[in-house]
Amino acid sequence: MLTTLMISLLTTSSATAGEGMWLPEQLPEVAPAWEGKGLRIPADKLGDPLGQPLGSIVTMGFCSASFVSEDGLMLTNHHCVEGFLQQNSSGEKNLHKDGFVAGSRADELSVGPGGKVAVVESITDVTAKVLAKVGRRTKDAKRERLIDEAEKRLVAECERERDRRCRVASYRGGAEFRLIKAFELSDVRIVAAPPMAMGQYGGEIDNWMWPRHGADFAVLRAYVAKDGTAADYSVDNVPYRPKHHLTVDWTGAEPDSFVMVAGYPGRTSRHARAESLRWYAEDYLPTRQALTREVHDLLLDHASRDPDAEARLGAAISSLANGLKNGEGLLDGLRKGGLIADKQRREAEILAWVDADPARKKRWRADLDAQLVLIEEGQRDATRELYASWIGRGADLLAVARRSVRWAEEREKKTDLERDSGYQDRDRERIEAGFSKLDRSLHLTSDRDVLALVLGHYGKLPDEQRIPELDAFIADLGGVDKTLDALYDKPALATSPARLALLDQDLATLKASDDPWVRMALAMEAWSKPRREEKRARTGAGLRLGPSWYAVLEAYAAEQDQILYDDANSTLRVSLGVVKGYSPEDGLWAVPQTTASGFAAKAGPPPFDAPAHMVAAARDGRSSRFFDEALGDVPVDFLTTLDTTGGNSGSAVLDGEGRLVGLLFDGNYESIAADWVYQAAVNRSICVDVRWVGFTLQQMDGAGWILDELGLPAK
Amino acid sequence: MLTTLMISLLTTSSATAGEGMWLPEQLPEVAPAWEGKGLRIPADKLGDPLGQPLGSIVTMGFCSASFVSEDGLMLTNHHCVEGFLQQNSSGEKNLHKDGFVAGSRADELSVGPGGKVAVVESITDVTAKVLAKVGRRTKDAKRERLIDEAEKRLVAECERERDRRCRVASYRGGAEFRLIKAFELSDVRIVAAPPMAMGQYGGEIDNWMWPRHGADFAVLRAYVAKDGTAADYSVDNVPYRPKHHLTVDWTGAEPDSFVMVAGYPGRTSRHARAESLRWYAEDYLPTRQALTREVHDLLLDHASRDPDAEARLGAAISSLANGLKNGEGLLDGLRKGGLIADKQRREAEILAWVDADPARKKRWRADLDAQLVLIEEGQRDATRELYASWIGRGADLLAVARRSVRWAEEREKKTDLERDSGYQDRDRERIEAGFSKLDRSLHLTSDRDVLALVLGHYGKLPDEQRIPELDAFIADLGGVDKTLDALYDKPALATSPARLALLDQDLATLKASDDPWVRMALAMEAWSKPRREEKRARTGAGLRLGPSWYAVLEAYAAEQDQILYDDANSTLRVSLGVVKGYSPEDGLWAVPQTTASGFAAKAGPPPFDAPAHMVAAARDGRSSRFFDEALGDVPVDFLTTLDTTGGNSGSAVLDGEGRLVGLLFDGNYESIAADWVYQAAVNRSICVDVRWVGFTLQQMDGAGWILDELGLPAK
Repeated sequence: MLTTLMISLLTTSSATAGEGMWLPEQLPEVAPAWEGKGLRIPADKLGDPLGQPLGSIVTMGFCSASFVSEDGLMLTNHHCVEGFLQQNSSGEKNLHKDGFVAGSRADELSVGPGGKVAVVESITDVTAKVLAKVGRRTKDAKRERLIDEAEKRLVAECERERDRRCRVASYRGGAEFRLIKAFELSDVRIVAAPPMAMGQYGGEIDNWMWPRHGADFAVLRAYVAKDGTAADYSVDNVPYRPKHHLTVDWTGAEPDSFVMVAGYPGRTSRHARAESLRWYAEDYLPTRQALTREVHDLLLDHASRDPDAEARLGAAISSLANGLKNGEGLLDGLRKGGLIADKQRREAEILAWVDADPARKKRWRADLDAQLVLIEEGQRDATRELYASWIGRGADLLAVARRSVRWAEEREKKTDLERDSGYQDRDRERIEAGFSKLDRSLHLTSDRDVLALVLGHYGKLPDEQRIPELDAFIADLGGVDKTLDALYDKPALATSPARLALLDQDLATLKASDDPWVRMALAMEAWSKPRREEKRARTGAGLRLGPSWYAVLEAYAAEQDQILYDDANSTLRVSLGVVKGYSPEDGLWAVPQTTASGFAAKAGPPPFDAPAHMVAAARDGRSSRFFDEALGDVPVDFLTTLDTTGGNSGSAVLDGEGRLVGLLFDGNYESIAADWVYQAAVNRSICVDVRWVGFTLQQMDGAGWILDELGLPAK
Repeated sequence: MLTTLMISLLTTSSATAGEGMWLPEQLPEVAPAWEGKGLRIPADKLGDPLGQPLGSIVTMGFCSASFVSEDGLMLTNHHCVEGFLQQNSSGEKNLHKDGFVAGSRADELSVGPGGKVAVVESITDVTAKVLAKVGRRTKDAKRERLIDEAEKRLVAECERERDRRCRVASYRGGAEFRLIKAFELSDVRIVAAPPMAMGQYGGEIDNWMWPRHGADFAVLRAYVAKDGTAADYSVDNVPYRPKHHLTVDWTGAEPDSFVMVAGYPGRTSRHARAESLRWYAEDYLPTRQALTREVHDLLLDHASRDPDAEARLGAAISSLANGLKNGEGLLDGLRKGGLIADKQRREAEILAWVDADPARKKRWRADLDAQLVLIEEGQRDATRELYASWIGRGADLLAVARRSVRWAEEREKKTDLERDSGYQDRDRERIEAGFSKLDRSLHLTSDRDVLALVLGHYGKLPDEQRIPELDAFIADLGGVDKTLDALYDKPALATSPARLALLDQDLATLKASDDPWVRMALAMEAWSKPRREEKRARTGAGLRLGPSWYAVLEAYAAEQDQILYDDANSTLRVSLGVVKGYSPEDGLWAVPQTTASGFAAKAGPPPFDAPAHMVAAARDGRSSRFFDEALGDVPVDFLTTLDTTGGNSGSAVLDGEGRLVGLLFDGNYESIAADWVYQAAVNRSICVDVRWVGFTLQQMDGAGWILDELGLPAK
């Protein structure tokens, strides 16, 4: 938390270029520049996070969504509900693969306890409360602790109210804190989802890519108890009636038209110091990529030889592949754009500007220098930390044992509030779910190979970077091979009751255990605990120094009549932009819309195995009501200059009147580097046109009533 | 020869779409459609093959070229003179890699005896002479023989005149024959060539691809003896003064502007029967691709393990890779475009049109049916023939031995005229050169592996498809392994004197030889000889039936006010079109020009290792005299709708005034299938803008005098 620092600046010339994930309250200042360009909602109305249209936007935690009917109907991405579809699938009825359309409201399927939707009710500045006990001289580790405790106290207090989920978010480098209170809907149901091969047409091949032809949407509905309170799934529940919902603009998006997107982008590092980017791109990421590739290839090898391994490792392999592509995209983007040098140059300019005025220099320079020292300290042990984290991540049972040891440790604290985030009572349900789910993914043979691989790399680290407690544990067991034998010889933790039982053991019981996984976890924990304290101190220092850097950026921007936007922090943001192509390379232009014909032309073996009737209908686009004369085809996906990142998936794309014209579902390959630096010329968000949503639903039997509820006029 | 039949038809709507490799005499009919679109030369002037501009266009056999100064200066492609540059390179001076600029005329380098330039002097209809002895009832094999002999007689007679090279070309499916007499220049010198990494920037990776950034040009000059006669290289020779030469238009080509290309396209099969295309694409090519890939991978494996193998096999591997890419492109293009079914549908339409009129039906239908039977006969043994040809092609020494056996056989004939084409006295020089060059490419270890591979596949053919003579040869030696041992145990033919000596041995001597290669060649020849006779009969039948099909196509086109163009046959053709992009796939547009910045952005490891000073100059395009304000950069390559194929490489691209604005050097990936079917929407030719030629020359030391001679105005 709060490690994002800052430097990218919006230049006046690009005021309407698409850059910026704006806080709602910034819109009155930012939006007027777009008023001549298609934005027709008054800026102050647009800036109300609880009004219309922003009040229709919700978060599912990992994805954004929006209400689109007065009866709680919601739109989000197919890839956001993939897990829910899998849970509702069985051997004979594979909703994930074949898609789903509820015959009526009664047939809508519960997504289970994992699906929650947060409808924000209030946003309160709690800076004074969070920083109440913190003084200028508070030691860094204590500063972190005090802030963390204050945040937890505020959250606990807030959540005392029924059905509420709360969080404290930090802004402006840690200068500001807000308590966000949301009404949490916990009965969410699937109304309709296209077949996997439509929703994620092109799969991994097309992921991050343009041209794109995905129908990446799903239709959900939120339910509440009859008395309007939130409730877990029950047949007696009734549809939730949101305060606000969006209207669909069935004319969709067209080239050069104004669009905006409202959603919950996760994390960006636009304002990181240049050194953080340089180190990440030049030192850390290449090492991480190499290791990830090795693990990926190893798992793939297992999966290719054994169907059981394939079933268990599929998700992990996809996730690693996605991470690799993301890492490559980032490195590619930074290299091609010369972005590291750019960022260094701009930071040098800003520092020179600070130094040019004695008052500024006196106020900020020492903090900025200290921040750099802090960044470099954090980098020092990164390789060791990388392997340490892989030893846990790679070996599933070690991750279980470590979490259990930490759980027991935190239980020793008197009150829940003192416990570290992630180990409070409110977290137990999630941890238990994780331990149980392992039944479906644990694969000991490959797990052992991964641990052997990671330990092999770790073994080559120089002496001063080793983990003495781990070395002692391995030496005790007679070396790496014998350690692996001991760990993987019929491990007790291979069954979920044994894993869940661990959470009930106190620290003393665990310390007396002779389970090798528990002993290894204790060894790692003995090393990690002081590391966590060091890290806490660094986080505290970051909280102390971060506001200075952000203040410098704000002052520098103000002097140039520019508006600074904060890095994304999983809170509601609005981006403004246009539907527009780009040049992926000299000699090529990515046109901003794809077509049903293009979709049909790509049909073939997986991941392009769209149902034959969809392909046939797409070939015959001219006879569809969604046919667009200007395009000469049914529109599918479109490109926008909208500034987005992970977490924005499922976000509603709105036209100038605030009506829904599409759903954002991805960024282009060039936008991967945008987590650090936005490039107006090439950063694009990829959206599905609401007409392709309509077209796809229309081809699915029995979806007529859903299209009606979505406001599609009778023909 | 004469196996190309026909069916693609130009539709009136695409009269100015770019389709058509026109014979010069067709231009008065075709060109007027372009007169409002930028063509400003009178059509009858343009149609004169010996006038201006067509008289400036020459052929180097494998490539086209054009005169660009009154002193015999010529422009062609870098990839057309690659071999010449290699011949002129040594360890310390690598012209192929580093490029070359002559300091003055005296420093221009001879390309050696392999480089000839043909300047056409006359084109005469010799149909009556070629067909003089052929009657309607002449048996097919005899028909082929009579035509072949008549052609050879005409050529020999024509070449009796000093310095002339002659050929008989057939047109309209074999209905027409023309004798083309050319003045053959045999002292050709290299004036300038860019470094390989400029000329073929992107190498195999970019081959057939767009975007493209090649400076694929070379500057040559032709020399003659002082008395104006052609002469081999001598310091006493003087520059040849061509009757015509082109002027360079240094403003280059711009988007949507009219362009035309004049050159010597090799072979197309646009008018082949639909069944020929279906069989080629569905049956033959996939088998050939699979075998080629195996051989390619095998050679690559050798090359990767052994630097000597790498040096020897490099060219063969490139050639196989190029063939594979070409084959893939063809299959891709045919599949995507649904071209086979299209061609079948159009052929069915034409046949129905024939049948609809009793007179037409009576005149043509029997011939068209017989032609189909003939095509199917030719297909029958194709797999066996494929392996038989690979047994020769794969094993270099077998190819030498087979050619020597054939040579000796043909020597038995009394007169040179009776000998088969390729085995006449005029061919000996070329055969000897081939035998000698083997010193640099022969690699016995991989050669043996390839032969083993091919024999392995051959061994799986059903009994009726086997070659009994080859089976007997192998059985005699005790099976495949022992045969391979015998062949590759210190083969005498591994040295070039031994190979050259074979050409002096008569058939009796060869038959007495105990060299296993010679014995294997004799076995293969015993099988091949009757096959050749069968093939001759089929060729004769093709010559008998082909004119009917072409006549049908002509009549069908005429009825629809369309003009039919003949398939390419390595004679002078002119294509008319525009500079224009295309959509390689839905969501992408290939813009028709690339830029110096794009060139610089691709610079990196081979094959993108352009010299640093070129890259730096390209980054600073704005300061260049070749900077184009509209483009905002220095233009590099451009796309046109011009209809071209292999052999067109080096062709001058002309503007509406007939001035040179670029050089054609490749087709796009989508154009690979255009050897069978032209698709107006996606077939594009790739050309280098003359401004990029100028830019590149300007960055090479001492090329100022060449730019002067190319007419670049002083600044």
